[in-house]
Amino acid sequence: MSKLISMGKDAKQASTILAKLSSDKKNEGLNKAAEFMMNRQDEILKANSIDLENAKNDGISGALLDRLKLDDERIKAMADGLKDIALLEDPIGEGSETIKRPNGLIIGQRRVPLGAIGIIYEARPNVTADGFGLCLKTGNAVILRGGKEAINSNIASVKIIQDALEECGIPKASVQLIEDTSREVANEMMKLDEYLDVLIPRGGAGLIKAVLENSTVPVIETGAGNCHVYVDSEADIKMATDIIINAKVQRPGVCNAIEKVVIHKDILESAIKPIVKELKENDVEVRGDEDVRKFEKDVLEATEDDWTEEYLDLTIAIKTVDNIDEAIEHINTYGTGHSDSIITNNYFSSQQFLEQVDSAAVYVNASTRFTDGAEFGYGAEIGISTQKLHARGPMGLKELTSTKYIIYGDGQIRG
Amino acid sequence: MSKLISMGKDAKQASTILAKLSSDKKNEGLNKAAEFMMNRQDEILKANSIDLENAKNDGISGALLDRLKLDDERIKAMADGLKDIALLEDPIGEGSETIKRPNGLIIGQRRVPLGAIGIIYEARPNVTADGFGLCLKTGNAVILRGGKEAINSNIASVKIIQDALEECGIPKASVQLIEDTSREVANEMMKLDEYLDVLIPRGGAGLIKAVLENSTVPVIETGAGNCHVYVDSEADIKMATDIIINAKVQRPGVCNAIEKVVIHKDILESAIKPIVKELKENDVEVRGDEDVRKFEKDVLEATEDDWTEEYLDLTIAIKTVDNIDEAIEHINTYGTGHSDSIITNNYFSSQQFLEQVDSAAVYVNASTRFTDGAEFGYGAEIGISTQKLHARGPMGLKELTSTKYIIYGDGQIRG
Repeated sequence: MSKLISMGKDAKQASTILAKLSSDKKNEGLNKAAEFMMNRQDEILKANSIDLENAKNDGISGALLDRLKLDDERIKAMADGLKDIALLEDPIGEGSETIKRPNGLIIGQRRVPLGAIGIIYEARPNVTADGFGLCLKTGNAVILRGGKEAINSNIASVKIIQDALEECGIPKASVQLIEDTSREVANEMMKLDEYLDVLIPRGGAGLIKAVLENSTVPVIETGAGNCHVYVDSEADIKMATDIIINAKVQRPGVCNAIEKVVIHKDILESAIKPIVKELKENDVEVRGDEDVRKFEKDVLEATEDDWTEEYLDLTIAIKTVDNIDEAIEHINTYGTGHSDSIITNNYFSSQQFLEQVDSAAVYVNASTRFTDGAEFGYGAEIGISTQKLHARGPMGLKELTSTKYIIYGDGQIRG
Repeated sequence: MSKLISMGKDAKQASTILAKLSSDKKNEGLNKAAEFMMNRQDEILKANSIDLENAKNDGISGALLDRLKLDDERIKAMADGLKDIALLEDPIGEGSETIKRPNGLIIGQRRVPLGAIGIIYEARPNVTADGFGLCLKTGNAVILRGGKEAINSNIASVKIIQDALEECGIPKASVQLIEDTSREVANEMMKLDEYLDVLIPRGGAGLIKAVLENSTVPVIETGAGNCHVYVDSEADIKMATDIIINAKVQRPGVCNAIEKVVIHKDILESAIKPIVKELKENDVEVRGDEDVRKFEKDVLEATEDDWTEEYLDLTIAIKTVDNIDEAIEHINTYGTGHSDSIITNNYFSSQQFLEQVDSAAVYVNASTRFTDGAEFGYGAEIGISTQKLHARGPMGLKELTSTKYIIYGDGQIRG
């Protein structure tokens, strides 16, 4: 039996116990894990320093290295995250309204865990605690497969969490880490459909594509965000500019940041100057189509590739359209269905945009940066789904659950 | 460009128009399709007679041939099915409760179509009209791939439906049939993730397994039903017998019929005689474990394979357990997570069974035959999902939809 199959079996077995745990017990596990992480942060920091050393030797630097790095503050944030999850409402066991059928059967739905969840992610050691916390709270066992760059940090974190669980009498196999970070083992994980109920890739487009193509486990696609702000002909230019700057600049490396501006030709002449000026003042590289470059000579030429690319950086491309229909078609053609916003004073334009833009989150007169579990009031999220099955948009606790029908009878048979 | 990619593009294009159609217009299309099917039933019957002729030449007979056969009554049932779907509430456009965040953003979810749906099915020509109807009502384009045995019936039906849609000004590509029934083209369909949002296999275990293994399109698994009745130590034996007979005999070839009885050892001696007697009177072949055969010498010996097999026939296997825990473990180990029922007078046993049996529908004191969209009051179903993602149990109209977040702002940016 391969190591992974044995982990799958252990996860499945743990999941049957987790499904029966009370919210109190699960919260005890979360708080104990937070406590252990704080008390034993030196172990994590020591392991993390090895990861950092290895990364530097491999030539990793900049944002990537920064994401890998843990310090007192970040470990405290991970521990606090677990305590915050303990405070959230437990969705497991919640019941729908019930119906009573003419034959007397009483039928309702009850919320239950999914079972065992796989999470594949990159070199972000904070996902380890976060993924564990959301899964434990929802009564799911989890198998984690993090990036090889963070392997020592992940091993240390999972060991500490498992010790905390053991102290609470919760199965250690509630959280397991795949320590072999080879691609072969990742591929094997994607075929573990007998044991995993869902696989969630958290990371860049390449990772998500690989998982979608290879997995026989159902996948929830998260995170790709080629987001747009559309400046309608009747937009408030000041509002449009503020929102574009916020959505592009406040945190350019995240999936709900915008990558593109689409602008109505009738407002182009008056709006383009302030927008480009502010973008440049914020060190954003601006690319544009021919119409944009007529008014702003310094703007670089946008190519066809620009309309599909997710820069995740201080770069933006601006496209001019003749009307709102063309704007919507552009967004639906080139976007990733994540978050898109219209800036307009016109009622009918706002309604048309909301109705016809085929994205997880569609905004009127607001920054796309709000597409986020915490900002939507969920308190925690495992990712932002850009697919249409099961969950769309920020995935909170409820999206890590399923339902089952429960039916009360008194001897009914079907006629 | 392959034929299938071109169909995929047409479906995607039709889906953007379908998403905007009013319920009235969709209902007009459904009723017109029903009218055309009735008026042109000779075309369908003629095509069906060719299918029947070919099937007979290929040695097909019995239940399979019967399923393939259409007559006046069955065509009327198909047309009536479409009219019934027109009468159902349209879920598209329904909104969730909205929240207002502290920053003034108003956030809600709106129900939207999935987009384009693929349905792969076997030699049941009625699925053609049914699949089309449910998809049109929910604003989804559909690509159908039926079994080769029914190809002429399907071509005739889809032609008539498309003519009806055209007369209503609804895109013909709302429903398309793959006329090449080769395995290669079915495999190509499973890779059409760029155009299809979900793939639903309707058919036997072999078909479902092939789709799950090969599809890069998200799949909703339906239909496998190794269902159980568990007769608890404190069961009403008469009720248990009636429910077992109903769940096994009333329609043995369907997925919500039971295949197994699990029986508590304390009630075995008094319950086994009436249960086996009634089963035999209903021409059911009875298999059992050693304990069962101690009391009923005529019962055949059940092997390990019996516990997993879905007979879909007048066969049943009976397993004895020491207690309810063992019963639940048996069901969760060997069952397919479809429908399982406990027969008991004991409150705590009923609650434990509901809580711990990990199936789409869990019953107390009722026949599993009720797991059905119509019986649950949905009016129509595309299948019964035995997976935990997206939909579990009978899938009505709502399960053919997704949601999107809509967010109303007045200039909010993220701090």
